[in-house]
Amino acid sequence: MDLNAYLKERRAQVDKALDTYLPGEDVLPISLHKAMRYSTFAAGKRIRPILMMAACEAVGGTVDKVMPAACAMEMIHTYSLIHDDLPAMDDDDFRRGRPTCHKVYGDALAILAGDALLTEAFILLSRLGEDGGVSLEAARRVSADIARCAGSMGMVGGQVVDMDSEGKEIDLATLEYIHTRKTGALILASVQSGAVLGGASSEQVDNLGRYAKAAGLAFQVADDILDIVGDQELLGKDVGSDQERGKATYPALLGLDAARDRAKELRDVALESLSGFDERAEPLRSIAHYIVDRSF
Amino acid sequence: MDLNAYLKERRAQVDKALDTYLPGEDVLPISLHKAMRYSTFAAGKRIRPILMMAACEAVGGTVDKVMPAACAMEMIHTYSLIHDDLPAMDDDDFRRGRPTCHKVYGDALAILAGDALLTEAFILLSRLGEDGGVSLEAARRVSADIARCAGSMGMVGGQVVDMDSEGKEIDLATLEYIHTRKTGALILASVQSGAVLGGASSEQVDNLGRYAKAAGLAFQVADDILDIVGDQELLGKDVGSDQERGKATYPALLGLDAARDRAKELRDVALESLSGFDERAEPLRSIAHYIVDRSF
Repeated sequence: MDLNAYLKERRAQVDKALDTYLPGEDVLPISLHKAMRYSTFAAGKRIRPILMMAACEAVGGTVDKVMPAACAMEMIHTYSLIHDDLPAMDDDDFRRGRPTCHKVYGDALAILAGDALLTEAFILLSRLGEDGGVSLEAARRVSADIARCAGSMGMVGGQVVDMDSEGKEIDLATLEYIHTRKTGALILASVQSGAVLGGASSEQVDNLGRYAKAAGLAFQVADDILDIVGDQELLGKDVGSDQERGKATYPALLGLDAARDRAKELRDVALESLSGFDERAEPLRSIAHYIVDRSF
Repeated sequence: MDLNAYLKERRAQVDKALDTYLPGEDVLPISLHKAMRYSTFAAGKRIRPILMMAACEAVGGTVDKVMPAACAMEMIHTYSLIHDDLPAMDDDDFRRGRPTCHKVYGDALAILAGDALLTEAFILLSRLGEDGGVSLEAARRVSADIARCAGSMGMVGGQVVDMDSEGKEIDLATLEYIHTRKTGALILASVQSGAVLGGASSEQVDNLGRYAKAAGLAFQVADDILDIVGDQELLGKDVGSDQERGKATYPALLGLDAARDRAKELRDVALESLSGFDERAEPLRSIAHYIVDRSF
């Protein structure tokens, strides 16, 4: 399949839906909605919403059922980036090649724009079962899964341990603890929510969960590799910024070659988890390749 | 009725439930859960959860049905205080008589503790319909109402306009815009959610909504008055801090006497909204008196 064309089409769908769901720049308070939109429409890859749609399709569901949840996921991802970039946190001036939210709107409004995006995600999720297209129980379960994966034992927890580990020697177990939460948790929630909303069996949800865990970790290993060997344009942030900051990375811990082997191994686990799925899982397979192969 | 005894009993119930719902201090990441608990158990009045319970009782519901939503509301309130107190925002060192979260745990962890508390609220809300005690549709509606009231057109929006207005001359309409959102929105959501979960008719929900709007605004007017005439212990923050900061307040805009008249007028609207309710609405009536009368 032509993954680039697929990703491009899906990205356009997500962008269009995000534009519909987010309050307009003419809605009060204007500065807040501008800041929320500035970061949301900062050329993101939309990988989480696309994974949710692809998981839904893989089990025979239709994509429009997951769009509110897919956009909610992207809003949660965006809020986490805004807060991560703050001076009190990673203090990054650029993100996806553009000045970060707080550089443009100031720290206070960036904090509030993040807060509002997280809240907006739950506004969207609470509307999931509204029109009967999705069962209320599936909607409830998806909201619960996404909230748990975004919370103190998921994404936020991973961020805290990541922060605590900066400049320290950490072992592989701690590094994986960080990544399975900081980035892995939302990817897991995306894939499993897409499956649930698509009407998956519990066995399918489990297999797609295994796919998501492996692909999510592979994504992070590949990102660490790209931080060393990639170019700034592809990465959207400064090359070598993790190293500069004394962050533990897979290449730092394992060496570059072993990190690449680990990425390939995880890709293969992801692919193997899809063995019981038919050609409708082809996008998920291509994405597993794409995630890892970009780091070669 | 003995309102003090009622509030004390309810507060103890809320504190106990919050302790159950929040991850323990022994759960990883420990620093995060400590920070979340530090701010949650900072001697709050629990006025929002108590209003939710009282509204539920006023329509004949039982209190245990609302406890998860009541605690979710308190978590949202607590997150908003943590973020408001940050150096990038109000830069407050004390809250409820104790050092603020960022003074104890640092700015980064305070940001993340706020994020995690907001997310934890939605974890709790997503569990509302789980055990069948509450219908899935009521649970969905309550989650939607609370999220909307907490979001960019509710509490966060009010905070943004409040921030934009600092040091500027603003009119009464802007001041009310701020307060109906910054504090009013969560109070409205608390009361209406309690009513919905208690099985209220739509007329009852409307009347209780009117009560909440009036009582919520009265609460703010009284707070503004207390900032001038109150003592620090009662207020839990520095007396005169609004004035110092050049914040618009009711007494500054209307004069102290007219502000007191406005508070009384709002209290009476709140009481009048409850005229169709029996003695089970007595706690709501007493609370309306308490909110306003403390500022005399």
